[in-house]
Amino acid sequence: MSLLTAEDVYPSRMGDRPAILERRDPAIYGKNAGPLSSADLNHYRDNGFLLLENLFAAAEVAQMREDLGRIWQHSQGSQAPEVICEPGSDVVRSVFAVHESDQAFNRWSRDPRLLNAARQVLDSDVYVHQSRINFKPGFTGQEFYWHSDFETWHVEDGMPRMRALSCSIWLDDNFPYNGSLMVIPHSHQYFVACMGQTPKEHYKQSLRRQEYGVPDQDSLRWLVERDGILMPEAKAGAALLFDCNIMHGSNSNITPLARRNVFFVYNSVENQLVPPFSGAEPRPWFLAHRDPELVVL
Amino acid sequence: MSLLTAEDVYPSRMGDRPAILERRDPAIYGKNAGPLSSADLNHYRDNGFLLLENLFAAAEVAQMREDLGRIWQHSQGSQAPEVICEPGSDVVRSVFAVHESDQAFNRWSRDPRLLNAARQVLDSDVYVHQSRINFKPGFTGQEFYWHSDFETWHVEDGMPRMRALSCSIWLDDNFPYNGSLMVIPHSHQYFVACMGQTPKEHYKQSLRRQEYGVPDQDSLRWLVERDGILMPEAKAGAALLFDCNIMHGSNSNITPLARRNVFFVYNSVENQLVPPFSGAEPRPWFLAHRDPELVVL
Repeated sequence: MSLLTAEDVYPSRMGDRPAILERRDPAIYGKNAGPLSSADLNHYRDNGFLLLENLFAAAEVAQMREDLGRIWQHSQGSQAPEVICEPGSDVVRSVFAVHESDQAFNRWSRDPRLLNAARQVLDSDVYVHQSRINFKPGFTGQEFYWHSDFETWHVEDGMPRMRALSCSIWLDDNFPYNGSLMVIPHSHQYFVACMGQTPKEHYKQSLRRQEYGVPDQDSLRWLVERDGILMPEAKAGAALLFDCNIMHGSNSNITPLARRNVFFVYNSVENQLVPPFSGAEPRPWFLAHRDPELVVL
Repeated sequence: MSLLTAEDVYPSRMGDRPAILERRDPAIYGKNAGPLSSADLNHYRDNGFLLLENLFAAAEVAQMREDLGRIWQHSQGSQAPEVICEPGSDVVRSVFAVHESDQAFNRWSRDPRLLNAARQVLDSDVYVHQSRINFKPGFTGQEFYWHSDFETWHVEDGMPRMRALSCSIWLDDNFPYNGSLMVIPHSHQYFVACMGQTPKEHYKQSLRRQEYGVPDQDSLRWLVERDGILMPEAKAGAALLFDCNIMHGSNSNITPLARRNVFFVYNSVENQLVPPFSGAEPRPWFLAHRDPELVVL
């Protein structure tokens, strides 16, 4: 496969009608040794996610919170493009590319527990496609509408196939009521092609509130009627591994309880980016690493 | 007590500092016979709410949904002041005073299961202070920020004391993920006096999104640290009885699963409204009934 003429096996945002396509890639690549058990791998394959409770010890969580507090301080009032505010306010919502801007998060992104799990699932070496912190603060945290990460990474960044895995490390207890992540189990086996085109520099708005690359309501109803919704609950220190194509989102958070998490996306070195399938310019470096030199793990 | 010179024992929106006052009224008035058991009454007294699962049979729920569907149809595009839309959209959020505008909901409001429970808790005859339907539609349902109903009813409507009970009848299953009601148990024992004044005709905005009569973050943290948050879960057909002063709210609902409910507020005939403690004009009839002729139950 030439990377420059890669076939678009997951067309999206091509017209005025949505569609649901079958996935054309495995969720688990190969049968490799690694930290995950057969039961873990089967759960991940069937559901599209795996919750690892207590993956990080209390002292590590405390350290990560301190590291995150430093990023929070530095981000206040920042005009850096990596710093994204909540819709309609100047409260910091997310900070991207923390594994590049911050030594501590660079180390966390290379933690062998995460890295070896990603290698095991994807059956190859991996690199960090994207990293970020989501602050989801108490009282004001806004929702993240339903989306497949892969849909955006494919259309706007040129990720050719579904061979990437996200890892969300939870720095607060996730309750049913503090805007916790919701997933539609098994939805990673379907690709929901979205309507509409992609406006130029769409990312400047979409990171606050997405308007394109949004799945239609009928497709979401279809997925939920088949497989329901799950809202994994666990204490701080858990990590959630999830497939790049699983449909997920979260409601707002009016409780006083923040729901901070650190997010690393591992992509297979066999799945490096090509020009975006939208035909537009690629998004900036802090959203999608394109330089093979960055494959340092 | 002269109703026209009622003492303001729960002052709020009087200045620039919030305060937490002890409740000066019982939650359960007297020890009356009725449909609720001693255990029910103790739970209500200690927590400020009581969940009655399966109070309405499946056929009754089906009938109520049909009644609600009729109201939904009539409300589309309506300019009636009783019809409230979601913030920033024309999706109908709530319709007030349905027990007056609709015969079926008038009958539901006089259902003896609700009425006798209200009489038992409040130890007197009761009347409907307010009724409404909340549609909380799928995909687009917005949050209801934390509030004590009593704070508003006291300041803006002139309800003198805490001797009223709300009943929410659930017409859809309430899951942790479809924007279900959250309560802070035991919070009904405290009155959180809010900051700021009340602008004229505040209700025209506040029913979509409240800006005054909003509890401050420190008081909410204090309440949650003491007693946590509960999110009662039950199937359609349940009813939640809750004290007029319990602190409650709900997050947004991006799931496809609507969370429709019917809401009747029963006030004791011993607690009829006086001029609003804000000093402003009373709010209109569909938000707070002021006419003793309406005490028809």
